[in-house]
Amino acid sequence: MSNQKITTRKDDYSQWYLDVIDAADLADNSPVRGCMVIKPYGFSLWDNIKNVLDNKIKATGVENAYFPLFIPKSFFEKEAEHVQGFAKECAVVTHHRLELDKKTGKLIPAGPLDEPLIVRPTSETIIYDMYSKWIQSYRDLPILINQWANVVRWEMRTRSFLRTMEFLWQEGHTAHATKIEAENRAQEMLQIYIDFVQDYLAIPVLSGKKSESEKFAGADTTYCIEALMQDGKALQAGTSHMLGQNFSKAFNISFLDDQGESQFAWQTSWGVSTRIIGALIMVHSDDQGLVLPPKIAPIQVVIIPIFKDEKEKQSVLKVAQTLAENLKKKNNLAVKIDERDLRPGVKFFEWEKRGVPIRIEIGPKDVMSKSVVVARRDTGEKIIIKTSAVVKTVNELLEKIQSHLFDKAKKFMADNSHQVDTWEEFEKIMSNRGGFVYAPWCGRAACEEEIKEKTKATIRVIPGDQPKEKGRCVHCSQPSENRVVFAKAY
Amino acid sequence: MSNQKITTRKDDYSQWYLDVIDAADLADNSPVRGCMVIKPYGFSLWDNIKNVLDNKIKATGVENAYFPLFIPKSFFEKEAEHVQGFAKECAVVTHHRLELDKKTGKLIPAGPLDEPLIVRPTSETIIYDMYSKWIQSYRDLPILINQWANVVRWEMRTRSFLRTMEFLWQEGHTAHATKIEAENRAQEMLQIYIDFVQDYLAIPVLSGKKSESEKFAGADTTYCIEALMQDGKALQAGTSHMLGQNFSKAFNISFLDDQGESQFAWQTSWGVSTRIIGALIMVHSDDQGLVLPPKIAPIQVVIIPIFKDEKEKQSVLKVAQTLAENLKKKNNLAVKIDERDLRPGVKFFEWEKRGVPIRIEIGPKDVMSKSVVVARRDTGEKIIIKTSAVVKTVNELLEKIQSHLFDKAKKFMADNSHQVDTWEEFEKIMSNRGGFVYAPWCGRAACEEEIKEKTKATIRVIPGDQPKEKGRCVHCSQPSENRVVFAKAY
Repeated sequence: MSNQKITTRKDDYSQWYLDVIDAADLADNSPVRGCMVIKPYGFSLWDNIKNVLDNKIKATGVENAYFPLFIPKSFFEKEAEHVQGFAKECAVVTHHRLELDKKTGKLIPAGPLDEPLIVRPTSETIIYDMYSKWIQSYRDLPILINQWANVVRWEMRTRSFLRTMEFLWQEGHTAHATKIEAENRAQEMLQIYIDFVQDYLAIPVLSGKKSESEKFAGADTTYCIEALMQDGKALQAGTSHMLGQNFSKAFNISFLDDQGESQFAWQTSWGVSTRIIGALIMVHSDDQGLVLPPKIAPIQVVIIPIFKDEKEKQSVLKVAQTLAENLKKKNNLAVKIDERDLRPGVKFFEWEKRGVPIRIEIGPKDVMSKSVVVARRDTGEKIIIKTSAVVKTVNELLEKIQSHLFDKAKKFMADNSHQVDTWEEFEKIMSNRGGFVYAPWCGRAACEEEIKEKTKATIRVIPGDQPKEKGRCVHCSQPSENRVVFAKAY
Repeated sequence: MSNQKITTRKDDYSQWYLDVIDAADLADNSPVRGCMVIKPYGFSLWDNIKNVLDNKIKATGVENAYFPLFIPKSFFEKEAEHVQGFAKECAVVTHHRLELDKKTGKLIPAGPLDEPLIVRPTSETIIYDMYSKWIQSYRDLPILINQWANVVRWEMRTRSFLRTMEFLWQEGHTAHATKIEAENRAQEMLQIYIDFVQDYLAIPVLSGKKSESEKFAGADTTYCIEALMQDGKALQAGTSHMLGQNFSKAFNISFLDDQGESQFAWQTSWGVSTRIIGALIMVHSDDQGLVLPPKIAPIQVVIIPIFKDEKEKQSVLKVAQTLAENLKKKNNLAVKIDERDLRPGVKFFEWEKRGVPIRIEIGPKDVMSKSVVVARRDTGEKIIIKTSAVVKTVNELLEKIQSHLFDKAKKFMADNSHQVDTWEEFEKIMSNRGGFVYAPWCGRAACEEEIKEKTKATIRVIPGDQPKEKGRCVHCSQPSENRVVFAKAY
């Protein structure tokens, strides 16, 4: 963990993001270009995300499994759209041995493979090849499987959590007997993501469909959730795809229905990745460092004993330990006592940078007066309360912090969402503060592309809950059916 | 899941193993040579193993993190012994794109890498490169990190769970200021593995050191646990390596000690993989299929309602549901009610093949008499008990089954362990039933190699708790210091 000062958001937003990660000890760059190391504190955050989401997914009847890391090259040749989307950026394994080159003394690749293997950028092809073996009858459906895995996409410009060559995620893959069942599943998973991201990560999101050009290669429809970062850029925080029969036809996933007729299965896939930690960092953190919502924080309460000598240390520690025990037992909280021989100020500063929601300070005077100091990370507010009231107060405060962070982010999103009807205003917003721009759009991919070239803004989502509103495209003035949401994006 | 009959162990042990996996629906072969698919039931077994082991590891102060999948080729050139051990069998990434070949219409690898990347066969090199950045002072030590990850070794002959090209594991990596601390950590982790495998998987093990030729490439000492399968072959179920300063010197992990002197760190690494599921299957299962120890079984109790019509179904189901709720709440058990419209016999057969420790049958007559039938998977024993006694009885039975499986396996190991002093007897045992052979050995690698060539037996472990016993090598008759344990192995 670096002791350097964190760059302010105003001075340099990009550098601020990297400084926050560094100061909170979440991750580090690795010697492999574009791959990061997720350090213990960052990984415990991912573990919390994983545990909550895994339970929510399982509660809908989905089971976990594990499929191979490698995909035969020929599988990429089967689904044309999919290839277009992924073949461009993948790690290709061509050899299965290293041999010593006697001339140079270096190791060189040897043992060429008959067919190269691709490190999975996503697993539709390898999983659906298995489904084609497992599914024969309508009785074998639905198949509802999820896997937690690492995937690799050869990104040219990388940034910790937001865009890394290798990342961790869950990818769910289902197969159904009917179109409606698959459609419902795609939407059900979208709702799970909305609930998880809003309730646990305290991040408000927009949801709806992607445009044709932004959707997943191989899907009929891509549903997504989009969050707004503090620099006015959007970040896609989860996607759920209605795949229709595109893959079932390419991989021959067919079954006999209850009438004895052969049918192709209807499918969905959906995923959330370590990218979401990037959103979590950027939505809540401030110039002092990371800010974490209590429901997902690896450490919810840190207790700092304050003492000058061994005698004081013992009496203060005793109170701290009793408090910690109570908070753990009664509230099931993740509590840490920082006993290190460092100045209290240094410790305050460190846990602030790590985004721990509540800090409790206990000094010798507090022991005497049977009280403690309780400080909130989100507002900086400090209160002095009786030790006997800590369990109740901390519980209430954690709930307050959780909803305060959500409300604050929601207000920010509202303040930075604009109904725009003229191209002049559209360009002005995109070249200044950014944000979500609700604008009429003609529906043409060519127009969408021109908008992107001119402003870097893309259609983030076609909201599902918008009323139909006939109008004129904000860019080309051709007739439009409804408003879509534009933003510059990560 | 196949409905075919399981081959008996006597007829064809290898086929029996594959049949058990297939009948229990644990895994399937994938289209990628040597890679398997872990199906939901098999994966929930791995998840249980992972959860228990993860808690035990964390309780010793270790934290989880995540390091890159890829390792730069040059890292393999740094630690000579390690290269020898792993360079032979690895997946080499040489390109980062697929391009359409216009002549053939096929995709071909494009975008050659300046330096090839190796898919990790194990992560010492990439992790220790990071440690060299993180460690400067004795205050930065110890570092205690574990990761749960997939690794790849290019195996020529593969077999589900036992030896697959890609497998899942945990790999722990520590760095310490002193040799004794590292040595203690290596032994502490070995003890964690012994306790876990014996207490949860009900598999008795031998433990101790590996011989020089069997140890991990790059370690000073490799500690291991070895279990005995029903065909008399040994299986290594976990290893813990005292790495000494081999890697810290190769990767320059140095620190200033409390006297201001520069020192190289002392290190350990230790791991358990999905291989252990192979041991679990082979130690306990029988000709009827999988047998699982209750403490690790994904489903501990299956309830089969027996009925002829809808009315019977409702009354039986009501009792079944109450029972299930009680077992879940009071005993925290994993209980499943099999409500499917299949004949009871078919269901009995299926859950037997899946190794569920206890089956409860409830029919209309049982509802009348307020009793149920309880059947044990391990012994096949059936008892009729009052419904009111189920919670207590099931709890006791699960404990009995757990210890019965361990005792049975322990007896098998004892019955198949032999003190051998003559080469004639050694060869005879190895060409017949196999087992653990405690024999005097001269300590020479050449002799060890000859024994392997002649009998396929290797030194599995040099037991730590054996008394010194001067004698003559069982093979070459040169003087020996103590007995070591030979066996043919997976």
